Amino acid sequence: MTALPLANDSFLRACLRQPTGHTPIWLMRQAGRYLPEYRATRARAGSFMGLATSPDFATEVTLQPLELWPLDAAILFSDILTVPDAMGLGLSFSTGEGPRFAHPVRDEAAVAALRVPDLAALRYVFDAVASIRRALVTTDAGGRRVARVPLIGFSGSPWTLACYMVEGGGSDDYRLVKTMLYARPDLMHRMLDVVAQAVAAYLNAQIDAGAQAAMIFDSWGGVLADGAFQSFSLAYTRRVVQALQREKDGQRVPVIVFTKGGGPWLDEIAGCGADVVGLDWTVDLGRARAAVGNRVALQGNLDPAVLFAPPEAVAREAQAVLDRFGPPQRADGAWDGHIFNLGHGIHQLTPPEHVGALVEAVHTHSRRLRGAAAGRARE
Amino acid sequence: MTALPLANDSFLRACLRQPTGHTPIWLMRQAGRYLPEYRATRARAGSFMGLATSPDFATEVTLQPLELWPLDAAILFSDILTVPDAMGLGLSFSTGEGPRFAHPVRDEAAVAALRVPDLAALRYVFDAVASIRRALVTTDAGGRRVARVPLIGFSGSPWTLACYMVEGGGSDDYRLVKTMLYARPDLMHRMLDVVAQAVAAYLNAQIDAGAQAAMIFDSWGGVLADGAFQSFSLAYTRRVVQALQREKDGQRVPVIVFTKGGGPWLDEIAGCGADVVGLDWTVDLGRARAAVGNRVALQGNLDPAVLFAPPEAVAREAQAVLDRFGPPQRADGAWDGHIFNLGHGIHQLTPPEHVGALVEAVHTHSRRLRGAAAGRARE
Repeated sequence: MTALPLANDSFLRACLRQPTGHTPIWLMRQAGRYLPEYRATRARAGSFMGLATSPDFATEVTLQPLELWPLDAAILFSDILTVPDAMGLGLSFSTGEGPRFAHPVRDEAAVAALRVPDLAALRYVFDAVASIRRALVTTDAGGRRVARVPLIGFSGSPWTLACYMVEGGGSDDYRLVKTMLYARPDLMHRMLDVVAQAVAAYLNAQIDAGAQAAMIFDSWGGVLADGAFQSFSLAYTRRVVQALQREKDGQRVPVIVFTKGGGPWLDEIAGCGADVVGLDWTVDLGRARAAVGNRVALQGNLDPAVLFAPPEAVAREAQAVLDRFGPPQRADGAWDGHIFNLGHGIHQLTPPEHVGALVEAVHTHSRRLRGAAAGRARE
Repeated sequence: MTALPLANDSFLRACLRQPTGHTPIWLMRQAGRYLPEYRATRARAGSFMGLATSPDFATEVTLQPLELWPLDAAILFSDILTVPDAMGLGLSFSTGEGPRFAHPVRDEAAVAALRVPDLAALRYVFDAVASIRRALVTTDAGGRRVARVPLIGFSGSPWTLACYMVEGGGSDDYRLVKTMLYARPDLMHRMLDVVAQAVAAYLNAQIDAGAQAAMIFDSWGGVLADGAFQSFSLAYTRRVVQALQREKDGQRVPVIVFTKGGGPWLDEIAGCGADVVGLDWTVDLGRARAAVGNRVALQGNLDPAVLFAPPEAVAREAQAVLDRFGPPQRADGAWDGHIFNLGHGIHQLTPPEHVGALVEAVHTHSRRLRGAAAGRARE
């Protein structure tokens, strides 16, 4: 794939702490059930797995939110559990129940049997990445072929995948995986070691296929105790980050690490080698910016529940998030990076028109903030 | 009720940052479903409400864990939703579904109709407090009548109660209550104002009846965004704390505030007027101690999931928590307070014998820590 210029590179620039004219925005799970367009495609696909394993359908739903609003990045539509599925755990989705593994990993023999999967089993994901990249190509006003926005690839973190693999599905108490962690830390480490290798290979293959940034979702890191988080989650996320190719077609490939509930460990997460740290809404973005300094860019952190309120309230709260971060250019002239996002995936009952109000508010207010800061600097 | 001397006042002393020979321990939900004794009483009571509204049954289950292990405090057995129930919301418990309100508070009219309830409707709670105090009386080795351990009273925080009142029961996304918060902050404030008055009156009546400490469970404060937490949760917790009587029978009545997921706001919570701040397991107890200085004592913070591991692992993790806090006596001779607890209620599938191992480990290791520190001081 030749690297066409990006019509809108604000997302990549913010990831790398370079100047941008506005604060870029994308939303976790932006291609999803809250969109009627998505539900229509899902119905045609017949099942969630039918949707997720078809490069054509995955391309279609990935682009849907970009047709509706000027979002600054696309993110691969896929499931977080593709890797354990390729490891032979037997993934299925029952209606209303969420994901289930037929063969959860709960004892020494099951851990010993784990292997880094053959990436050929995940080819549908890499094909989707290449297909989405092609679908993002357009012609700009000058008749030049350009890519509209960059495409983000992703994976669950080793710890988050291990939670699903041991629990056999979602959980609200993480009893089985934490029991293994505290009773048999040796088994837990062996499992995380294999999963980390698999995740690194999986993300590198996504980058090979065309992903221009890679995001690691440590969705369940925040359920761990201080100490356990560092040993069983962050250590393996760091291994993945360090194993990733960081340049492709002469472009830096930024890595984003998002730990839901990771506020207490921001300083340590910022040191894991990622370019960007995602934050949930419990974190004060101003304090977080001061804490990470110029080590990483920050992504976040509106409470997705704000999107249930009327558009005026959405705009007000979006502005408050931007104001907490402040103008991205610092007094010394350098730029800090901020990518606007929710602090968690968008809720399936979100009114789609509220997303439009959010994108508009973020673009408008972030331009205003830059203007005001530049005005002050000129005085 | 005359104030008998306490045979074991380590809990109250630690709350007030006074010297103790060991680190006191009690467990959130220590009287509960993990105990076969509790399940037997529950079966006799016929229903959860039958259990919670009977002073005799409440006394029986409150004392059960104290018969099994040398815990350093008793906590009133009651439900967190007694106050909204007394406000006329119609509480019921369906098996496996948790609490339900027949009349959730979801619009302006429902908020306007809210009143501080007549405390007579909650008399069963105050009777239980008095009954438990009587049941805690024993005779010491010298033939003196003493109270075994102090009794803690409790309430949900205004925000936490409001979550249940708006959602109509438990929730995993807090969609309705957050929609009200962002769309109609005025309504939310009006509701919290009434609930805060009710909670303060309720806790003061528990103290009148004999509760020797008061704990405010802000179980859902941690789901709020930074900014919203301060305005909609902490501000009302503070109002409650400031309205409480803090001395009874010549004794200070300590107040404990526990916000699950409140780590990001520890500094602000420590300034709310409470004597003790409860912490969940995501917080580094050593850093928290340094952050709060000598303003408050700390309570916590073992992950309840540790209790699923074998007794040796339980002891090891309990020691790690005590070591993170460090010897409570500071270099300047003053004492910091630490009350050992879980970072959340004990899980119903916990093997009871592991609780015994925990209590033993905390008592033994905390005595050892004090001895080692004293030894170093003498050198």
